[in-house]
Amino acid sequence: MQYEKSDLLYEGKGKKIYAVKANDDLVYMEFKDSLTAFNAQKTGSFVGKGIINHKISSSIFTYLKEQGINTHMVSSPQLGIQVCHKVEIIPLEVVVRNVLAGSTAKKFAIEEGTILSEPLVEFYYKKDELQDPFLSDAQALMLKAARSQEELDVLKQLALKINSKLLPFFDHIGIKLIDFKVEFGRSRNGEILLADEISPDSCRLWDKETNEKYDKDRFRRDLGGVAEGYQMIWSRIQKYYQGEVE
Amino acid sequence: MQYEKSDLLYEGKGKKIYAVKANDDLVYMEFKDSLTAFNAQKTGSFVGKGIINHKISSSIFTYLKEQGINTHMVSSPQLGIQVCHKVEIIPLEVVVRNVLAGSTAKKFAIEEGTILSEPLVEFYYKKDELQDPFLSDAQALMLKAARSQEELDVLKQLALKINSKLLPFFDHIGIKLIDFKVEFGRSRNGEILLADEISPDSCRLWDKETNEKYDKDRFRRDLGGVAEGYQMIWSRIQKYYQGEVE
Repeated sequence: MQYEKSDLLYEGKGKKIYAVKANDDLVYMEFKDSLTAFNAQKTGSFVGKGIINHKISSSIFTYLKEQGINTHMVSSPQLGIQVCHKVEIIPLEVVVRNVLAGSTAKKFAIEEGTILSEPLVEFYYKKDELQDPFLSDAQALMLKAARSQEELDVLKQLALKINSKLLPFFDHIGIKLIDFKVEFGRSRNGEILLADEISPDSCRLWDKETNEKYDKDRFRRDLGGVAEGYQMIWSRIQKYYQGEVE
Repeated sequence: MQYEKSDLLYEGKGKKIYAVKANDDLVYMEFKDSLTAFNAQKTGSFVGKGIINHKISSSIFTYLKEQGINTHMVSSPQLGIQVCHKVEIIPLEVVVRNVLAGSTAKKFAIEEGTILSEPLVEFYYKKDELQDPFLSDAQALMLKAARSQEELDVLKQLALKINSKLLPFFDHIGIKLIDFKVEFGRSRNGEILLADEISPDSCRLWDKETNEKYDKDRFRRDLGGVAEGYQMIWSRIQKYYQGEVE
């Protein structure tokens, strides 16, 4: 089915969201080549990033759908473009950590790479002008970011279920899933759907053998080889889908 | 009963804790004149602060005990000195907010003075070298700051109960209880006791009519009249105890 792009509804750091002509239930999501870090204080890009992230995220969303996770994804009419169900985005970044790295490791002065005895779920308030602050359940409710404690509990359970499905997915392709960020939306009929994307922009992905990083930390920390890192993830996923990796 | 001060066990920002000679179940708590703010980046003092805080905190703990809250307080053998049950301090600062002010107002860019529809309970990790970071239940459990979610729930319930008792106490003396911080400890028999102190060092206390501040914000924000603010709280509590205030 063909969908025609209409008005720009929203431009985020990594994507543009457009209305779909004559269909109010869908949106048209364009993956951008830009890279941002530290709440957009650092910016960059590489040609083809949008397309790679679209490929990676679509593969992961397809896999998660097969595993029983409801997502906003409808179809991918062309490279870098995804058609999605229109959702009301819940303004919480839901982070799951299997291994400590980044801001939480720093906050508690715990060594990066420390393996957690169980996955840690965190909420960050999605608000650029406040620099997406970490917050508690009670603060999320105070801000009406979620409708109820029950909704927060659903987000946590979904995030943990997604983690339990992603761990073996990445393990099969020789990658340790250190942490990741997901966003959820409420569909018109009140269902909570996995939205946004899952890509090297929103995950920490380390090589199982060497701990080499294949994610946005290459950009954040000026490690070089950013495009090559993202490409590595996509080529390993491709091999997995072609049955070349056990 | 007389207790003799023994070895210094711990020196905090506002108190020194000593062992009690020949009694391993008790400690000897000395209130200091020093004032600190912004995780001890700003320091000061005024003569008599320790004694005023001891008087205020003892009155409040006595009142809370009458209201069914279990505290560590045993007796006050002299000005500025309290004998307390020895507890294992739970390394969480438990904050209750009725009105937004301070760090949380700033974090979410909400105007100071915004009245909350229900009290907000927050945990901060008590660790000077990390500057007492705000944390979630899940992070507190990850750090083993509390033994279980059940223990965290008990702390929240106790903090809310204390708030519900302190609100009318302060209202009677013409003070709005904006927010306060409490700490809890585990007694030898596993009971959770209110510990530390409740004083203008650990509360935001605004005049009901004028919104004049009578708490550590006078020091934090260089408003002057720090000693007079603390003295105002004590003199109003005294009048309340003498039945001069309805």
